[in-house]
Amino acid sequence: MNTQRPDSARRAGRRTFLTQSAAWGVLLAAGVAADRTSGEVSPISAPPDSTKVLGRPVRPYGSRSRFETASRGQVPSPTREASASLTPLQHLYGIITPSELHFERHHAGVPEIDPARHRLLIHGRVRRPLVLTLAEIQRLPSVSRVHMIECSGNTSTEWARPTMPDVEGTHGMTSCSEWTGVLLATILRDLGVERGAKWVVAEGADGAALTRSLPIAKCLDDVILAYGQNGEALRPEQGYPLRLMVPGWEGSTHVKWLRRLKLVAEPYQTREETSKYTDLMPDGTARQFTFVMEAKSVITYPSAGLRLPGPGVYEITGLAWSGRGYVRRVEISTDGGGTWRDAPLQEPIHRIAHTRFRLPWTWSGRECTLQSRCTDDRGYVQPSIADLARIRGVHSLNHLNAIQSWKVTAQGVVLNVRA
Amino acid sequence: MNTQRPDSARRAGRRTFLTQSAAWGVLLAAGVAADRTSGEVSPISAPPDSTKVLGRPVRPYGSRSRFETASRGQVPSPTREASASLTPLQHLYGIITPSELHFERHHAGVPEIDPARHRLLIHGRVRRPLVLTLAEIQRLPSVSRVHMIECSGNTSTEWARPTMPDVEGTHGMTSCSEWTGVLLATILRDLGVERGAKWVVAEGADGAALTRSLPIAKCLDDVILAYGQNGEALRPEQGYPLRLMVPGWEGSTHVKWLRRLKLVAEPYQTREETSKYTDLMPDGTARQFTFVMEAKSVITYPSAGLRLPGPGVYEITGLAWSGRGYVRRVEISTDGGGTWRDAPLQEPIHRIAHTRFRLPWTWSGRECTLQSRCTDDRGYVQPSIADLARIRGVHSLNHLNAIQSWKVTAQGVVLNVRA
Repeated sequence: MNTQRPDSARRAGRRTFLTQSAAWGVLLAAGVAADRTSGEVSPISAPPDSTKVLGRPVRPYGSRSRFETASRGQVPSPTREASASLTPLQHLYGIITPSELHFERHHAGVPEIDPARHRLLIHGRVRRPLVLTLAEIQRLPSVSRVHMIECSGNTSTEWARPTMPDVEGTHGMTSCSEWTGVLLATILRDLGVERGAKWVVAEGADGAALTRSLPIAKCLDDVILAYGQNGEALRPEQGYPLRLMVPGWEGSTHVKWLRRLKLVAEPYQTREETSKYTDLMPDGTARQFTFVMEAKSVITYPSAGLRLPGPGVYEITGLAWSGRGYVRRVEISTDGGGTWRDAPLQEPIHRIAHTRFRLPWTWSGRECTLQSRCTDDRGYVQPSIADLARIRGVHSLNHLNAIQSWKVTAQGVVLNVRA
Repeated sequence: MNTQRPDSARRAGRRTFLTQSAAWGVLLAAGVAADRTSGEVSPISAPPDSTKVLGRPVRPYGSRSRFETASRGQVPSPTREASASLTPLQHLYGIITPSELHFERHHAGVPEIDPARHRLLIHGRVRRPLVLTLAEIQRLPSVSRVHMIECSGNTSTEWARPTMPDVEGTHGMTSCSEWTGVLLATILRDLGVERGAKWVVAEGADGAALTRSLPIAKCLDDVILAYGQNGEALRPEQGYPLRLMVPGWEGSTHVKWLRRLKLVAEPYQTREETSKYTDLMPDGTARQFTFVMEAKSVITYPSAGLRLPGPGVYEITGLAWSGRGYVRRVEISTDGGGTWRDAPLQEPIHRIAHTRFRLPWTWSGRECTLQSRCTDDRGYVQPSIADLARIRGVHSLNHLNAIQSWKVTAQGVVLNVRA
């Protein structure tokens, strides 16, 4: 992935007026005298003085500046339809992922669906089976909640050794949005769940007809039939016009392009819960239905592929989340885990959502290793890769939530390492 | 503005399975037997069965479905550069405004600015004047906060009589985003504010060089030098690459394309604070510097221009906000102000931000008038238009925050009325 994008200039490649000190106050002053440099000029041209020309008219629907080029890198795969693309976390601010940059994962491409013709069938062990139109679903009482979605395969390249060159590659399969829809419980309770209904099989309308089985208890708790994302309709890649939002559970359970929910007695043991989305354990067995994404965090700046322009004060920042609830604490180590400092969290903290942490840090110019460690409101602490591998082995693919280490070399180059 | 957009089909124009009752539970059941209808089919085609075809590949940067067409209507104006466009609130979910649909207001068009060449000059009564690059600003400690911005001219057509045909027209000059940037106080405190500095003059780099004077106290409180909007860089219409975010104050103070801050003793009495952005009072004087946007709310569904398909249960929903702090309460009347019921608020509630309210409502099929009334955490209650006009007269343009009335006719047509 190209880390020399114009918009990464804000992070790297320029000397700075901030010199080495923990007191920000002194630094701006020092900077004035010491270190003014000219900026890099982009190959794209803009008027030399924007006050001397008439600007662009109002528009019905906006788009970003031509100077902004952050994009989703594609995960290497035999086809571009059964593939994935990654959120460039190193370029994002705050906790909302722009919908254009929400990670993608699909098994037979993004289907095109006419919302007026789309239907959701709810059947099986339910007293009154039903076919719903989108308009009917949108007339029911709604909720909007900020939640993250993480693919269970996020970070899966990192089990045996540090592999990917940047945080987009190691952690880019998690994104966070404001989702709007109807609680599935609202509908299921009304239709009447029969006594024998223990699981709900959810099926997508894509070419893979992706199918996952979910325990009924979760479906009667906080699962959302979502049709809205960040204020507007779902984006096609995120399941337009209807998807499941299954707070805190692995991404593949949030079935997109949702067309069918069947209440059944047992899980269907579909491909996505037998050969795929299982965890190979050290004893050779495969663990199924590892639904919850455990507490995890990663530093997005400084992160691998970026370069610190020189010694001085920086703001270390990153994201933390837990599929079980609220992030309560993020600690940062700048000495490879020897000592830890609490990083303030961006408020309000949302349940099962990206939580932004930030901590000022003075880089001495010597080699060092940065890590973040998250604790959720159950008291669960994000493990080291060694502790995780002790239980899981290293032949698993999914559910790697270990502490990530970034080494800063004396030259300011940031690398993906094992601390 | 066209209210027959495909994406408004979700709200209007289709008979529904929900019949008249306050108990949602009974309704889904009744619907199955009574009222299944076929959906409207869009003129755009999509594969008849999306599971039988390969979908679209992953993409570096996403876009919305071709079936989604919500857009910003342009405010009538002599030119399209000195103009405004409106957020289609009737089509939005939750509290985040998609950046593509954030309202626009500019006086000489949207300038195109190369972020690498952009500079911010801070001078005047400051101990150490400074020119900052964007990279330098982005290296300082940052914050992300969800805030609304409302143009003081929002709803200005409604002083004398109900005028606009829909909520986009009456209230579309307010939008809400997650903004990221540096607290202006961080920089000003460091540079050293001189004793005589009582105001800060902020100047934009657009063709109008829009200029507003702000009291120093606000600038040392919660004003943000913002470079991020909803996770990515500011959109061009919202001030790319740098703007002021002045929480709760009228939109024109949030100077976009910010290039200069001058600390001075007195306000500059610019065009935007003398002939424009003042309030004509009944005695013929003009009130200046009415900075704060007072508590306000509006029902976005049902709202004028939409049509209820028939009697039955609906979810009344809308947005409330206060430039002074948190929304504490929203009440809804369905009888033109005779009686009021509290509407639950979407949590978490953000300070100085759109706050979504929702309340189930059974429409009997008889003519009625819907209103919402907001109370903020200072105890300020959104006034009636009569109470507001008693003090302000009706020859003002800006700062109309009165209760909005929508009449539902016996035919289900929703109209903008004076209750």
